[in-house]
Amino acid sequence: MSAEIVNPRSDSDTDGDHEELFDPAFALHRGGKMAVQATVPVRDKDDLSLAYTPGVAKVCSAIAEQPELVHDYTWKSQVVAVVTDGSAVLGLGDIGPEASLPVMEGKAILFKQFGGVDAVPIALDCRGVDEIVDTVVRLAPSFGGVNLEDISAPRCFEIERKLQERVDIPVFHDDQHGTAVVTLAALRNAAKLTGRSLDSLRAVISGAGAAGVAITKILIEAGIGDVAVCDRKGVVSPDREDLTPVKRELAGFTNKAGLSGSLESALDGADVFIGVSGGTVPEAAVATMAPGAFIFAMANPTPEIHPDIAHKYAAVVATGRSDYPNQINNVLAFPGIFAGALQVRAARITEGMKLAAAEALAAVVADELSADKVIPSPFDERVAPAVTAAVAAAARAEGVARR
Amino acid sequence: MSAEIVNPRSDSDTDGDHEELFDPAFALHRGGKMAVQATVPVRDKDDLSLAYTPGVAKVCSAIAEQPELVHDYTWKSQVVAVVTDGSAVLGLGDIGPEASLPVMEGKAILFKQFGGVDAVPIALDCRGVDEIVDTVVRLAPSFGGVNLEDISAPRCFEIERKLQERVDIPVFHDDQHGTAVVTLAALRNAAKLTGRSLDSLRAVISGAGAAGVAITKILIEAGIGDVAVCDRKGVVSPDREDLTPVKRELAGFTNKAGLSGSLESALDGADVFIGVSGGTVPEAAVATMAPGAFIFAMANPTPEIHPDIAHKYAAVVATGRSDYPNQINNVLAFPGIFAGALQVRAARITEGMKLAAAEALAAVVADELSADKVIPSPFDERVAPAVTAAVAAAARAEGVARR
Repeated sequence: MSAEIVNPRSDSDTDGDHEELFDPAFALHRGGKMAVQATVPVRDKDDLSLAYTPGVAKVCSAIAEQPELVHDYTWKSQVVAVVTDGSAVLGLGDIGPEASLPVMEGKAILFKQFGGVDAVPIALDCRGVDEIVDTVVRLAPSFGGVNLEDISAPRCFEIERKLQERVDIPVFHDDQHGTAVVTLAALRNAAKLTGRSLDSLRAVISGAGAAGVAITKILIEAGIGDVAVCDRKGVVSPDREDLTPVKRELAGFTNKAGLSGSLESALDGADVFIGVSGGTVPEAAVATMAPGAFIFAMANPTPEIHPDIAHKYAAVVATGRSDYPNQINNVLAFPGIFAGALQVRAARITEGMKLAAAEALAAVVADELSADKVIPSPFDERVAPAVTAAVAAAARAEGVARR
Repeated sequence: MSAEIVNPRSDSDTDGDHEELFDPAFALHRGGKMAVQATVPVRDKDDLSLAYTPGVAKVCSAIAEQPELVHDYTWKSQVVAVVTDGSAVLGLGDIGPEASLPVMEGKAILFKQFGGVDAVPIALDCRGVDEIVDTVVRLAPSFGGVNLEDISAPRCFEIERKLQERVDIPVFHDDQHGTAVVTLAALRNAAKLTGRSLDSLRAVISGAGAAGVAITKILIEAGIGDVAVCDRKGVVSPDREDLTPVKRELAGFTNKAGLSGSLESALDGADVFIGVSGGTVPEAAVATMAPGAFIFAMANPTPEIHPDIAHKYAAVVATGRSDYPNQINNVLAFPGIFAGALQVRAARITEGMKLAAAEALAAVVADELSADKVIPSPFDERVAPAVTAAVAAAARAEGVARR
């Protein structure tokens, strides 16, 4: 029996809007970007009696008696839920669950293409932290991991923490940790290229949202010399009265130099600029950075510092864009991180696993480093296997692997 | 980039239990029965810039402005959630969400194979009616329909009703309505074959759970002469003091004949027996049925009346088993019902759509009727397209289609 016979997708549409005529993105998205497929035959009675009743009953009974068999005999350990509430989608902001679906489908097919991991878009029609956490807890039996996506700060921090406390599968907010892993990998290679060690570097991060907070934490874990985080009002420092709880926590373990005031003033003598804010940094401030600086201006589509300007003052320049060298792209991290975690049935993704992912990612291009290549291309086929293996090994070393 | 490189599923296992050595169902289920695939290319930078950032942002913005475009530009209208709580799985009963997953995956691949519909297994770790309803309401933006599966009665009735009140996509409890549609189709053809009309028939249904209730309702809608429903204590009749609210409702619109007492006594002179109970009916009682009776003994694996005995007294015999003729198999209904509903973006599945599905299913074999063929084989390729077209047309006629 051919699925095409009655495939609703094959139906011709008459409701296309005129925009589609001009933009290839609409034509590509028509009918969605993904599908489900059977991986076992269902051609005849005998197939059906194994894959469905009565054969399936024995498999169900076996799992009921020995719950860990669910990992062996279903797709659970192969499939990740890509969960959002549509509150912070790309640069678009709060567009709601339905409008976020194209991004979640995109994420799902990247999981498959780059990590061999199945993924299902789950855009939730609720906003409360506890509502989202409760919902995903209830979904957890069906999935091997949860990729949180495009959920606004500061709720994303609390949702991730509460959820990971309640489920025994990995929960990973990619906007935080995927970005942090790739940034650290690029920074490691930039330091290696220029003969410096992380503990000699002072970094300034522009942006104290999901990505900024996670990058700050991973850089500190990796042993960066000092890091000052800036929001729209300047350096996050203990003397400020306007800090959210998350920023107050940040103020407690960053900024050893005791800086205060503006981002521009913090850049004076800094070795590293990391932009995840979308703001703009004046060239005059860039010019005050230390010689041989690293500038990672990752805002999309407009970097905080234009690469042409950045190159006048920096030894290494990275952006979030695919049309410049050194693209800091999460797809370098999340597929391999989940593939590695699923491979060993990790109960969570630890800091050690993230650090291992960053090291493995950096190592892929360690022997071919240049100022234009501190990070591999997203299409470098060595990346996902390297990250997968490193994350699986780290999970075993950290005692969170279950096989 | 090949997905196989880092596919966790390809890893060899060392934890297989000995049962697998002897039962092919375990070998077939290893790693699960389904996968996700991209339906658009993601080979290079240009592909990525259309399917993901920055191209995807235009599609998201269009949906944010014009919400109904989600049906055009995502897989929403192509994908059904197969939702269970694992409380009433096959003949196994309450085995919980994880152990139910092989059945839900099986259902998902049947959706794909027979209806061309994508489906995702969602086994929920919660039991309260409102918890389940709230959870599925939150999931609804991501799906085009909800197939409720293996949820125990009487919660299944309330969950379906409350859920359909709150979402604008079809909600369909297959254990009820799929079974009812296929049963009605077989009964129509049995009547046609023997030159009788439905309104001349008196039926006895053994079983007042999900399937029994739904079959009763659809037979009444279709114009059956009379129907008496029996539970373990006998005929459901208004004089009984032990009835649940659902059975009390049944008592109000069934059993015109005013029967009371045992199933056996109700069979005396009855034209139709429909078994969805798992009990056993003594041959002496079968012998009292009217001449030329129809016996649909659908319990699995042991029919309420063995076909060999049934054939001694009945003109038409059907079972739930694939190794006898006339298998009442839900796969004849649910793939086409959802394919039709999704095709026209129906907001719900009405009684008229179910009746139309039954008629279309019966019509497939109308010209080749015999006592051994009152219902098509599950592998008859004419079934799904016929049901799909009939359901889509009925949805339009009933005003629930949205295109």
